[in-house]
This record gives sequence, structure tokens and C-alpha cells, in this order.
Amino acid sequence: MADGGAAGTDAVFAALADPTRRALLARIAAAPASATELAGELPISRQAVAKHLAALVGAGLLQRSRSGRDVLYRVTPEPLGDAVSWIARVGGQWDERLARLARELGG
Amino acid sequence: MADGGAAGTDAVFAALADPTRRALLARIAAAPASATELAGELPISRQAVAKHLAALVGAGLLQRSRSGRDVLYRVTPEPLGDAVSWIARVGGQWDERLARLARELGG
Repeated sequence: MADGGAAGTDAVFAALADPTRRALLARIAAAPASATELAGELPISRQAVAKHLAALVGAGLLQRSRSGRDVLYRVTPEPLGDAVSWIARVGGQWDERLARLARELGG
Repeated sequence: MADGGAAGTDAVFAALADPTRRALLARIAAAPASATELAGELPISRQAVAKHLAALVGAGLLQRSRSGRDVLYRVTPEPLGDAVSWIARVGGQWDERLARLARELGG
């Protein structure tokens, strides 16, 4: 995780435990976007978008970057890779694809 | 997920957001175990073990099976595979290993 510890792992999985946050993350993974764009595209209020974006930034899954007058949100890949790596290490006990992934990720 | 829906995904990620539950899951992934064994091996109370096992069973990540007088807990792999598949689909935008995994998992 960004901070390399269990608290970071906790925050990442907790952030992924909400369907609206997963939808935001999937949308931003396709292309960086501003809060205004996201609120226009997804069936949620501007206020809810802001709250969920803050949670995703707090978990290290998104970063803000300035683009002219806009603030764009981009995905930070590392925490997702760390989350997959954790699951692959545990799940690799039964699943050869996950075991291979865990080896590739250095888990 | 076990129930195939967003609520199942929510429950799996929420269950993984706790370090004690991750430690229990990693231990049980290595070999099925009873609650008594787990309480003896991990630095947590019998009551806390019971509470976290119930949460993991509720999220579909563990199943109970009877072995003589004992109840053993075993990992149910499918929900972990679904969680990895979700992350791989999103993370596959930047990481070729995750993109390949997502294809292999049929994501």
C-alpha cells in the first residue's frame, strides 16, 4: 500500500466495499475526470461524488492533478496492485492462476 | 460473488478491510482449522475469533464443515477470485499482468 502497512490495506479494502466508489474508480480508470464530469455521468449527487472521491483519495486509490481550471482525478495503481497481491498470495493455495500472479508480483 | 451481485462484492471487500480477519483467512487458507485452534495460535480472544469467523462466513469467504466433534473452517475460493477479477478489470488499464489475469478470469 502507499504507506506500506496494514492500515493502508484496511483503507483500500474499505474503500472498495462501496458500489458507488467502485463505479467511480472504474470510470476514472478509463480516463481521468473532474468531479463535475463524474457528477454529470453517474446517477449520484455532486455532494455524494465529492464525499466518495475524498474517501478514495484518503485510501491512496486516487490522486488529484490540476488541469487548467479543473482538478482531475486519476487512479493511483499501486494500492490496487498491493490488494491483488494480498488476495493472490492467500488464494494461490488453490488457484494456479492466482499463485502465478503472486509469484509475478513478488508476493 | 456467492450471490453474484454488488452486495456480495461489498461484503467481501468489507470483510477484507480488517487485519485480524485477513490474518484468520491467511491461516485458514494454509489448512482448515477449528475456532479453538485459531484462538490458540493467534493473539486474539476466543470471542474475537468467533466474531470474525462469523463475519467471514457471512461474506461467503469461509464455510463450516463438521469433522468428528469439531467444526472446521475452510476458505471458499470463489469470492476471492471474484474480488481479484474486479480489481484486475479496473487495474488492467495500466498493468499488463492484471490485464492478462482479467482475460484469463473471463472478466
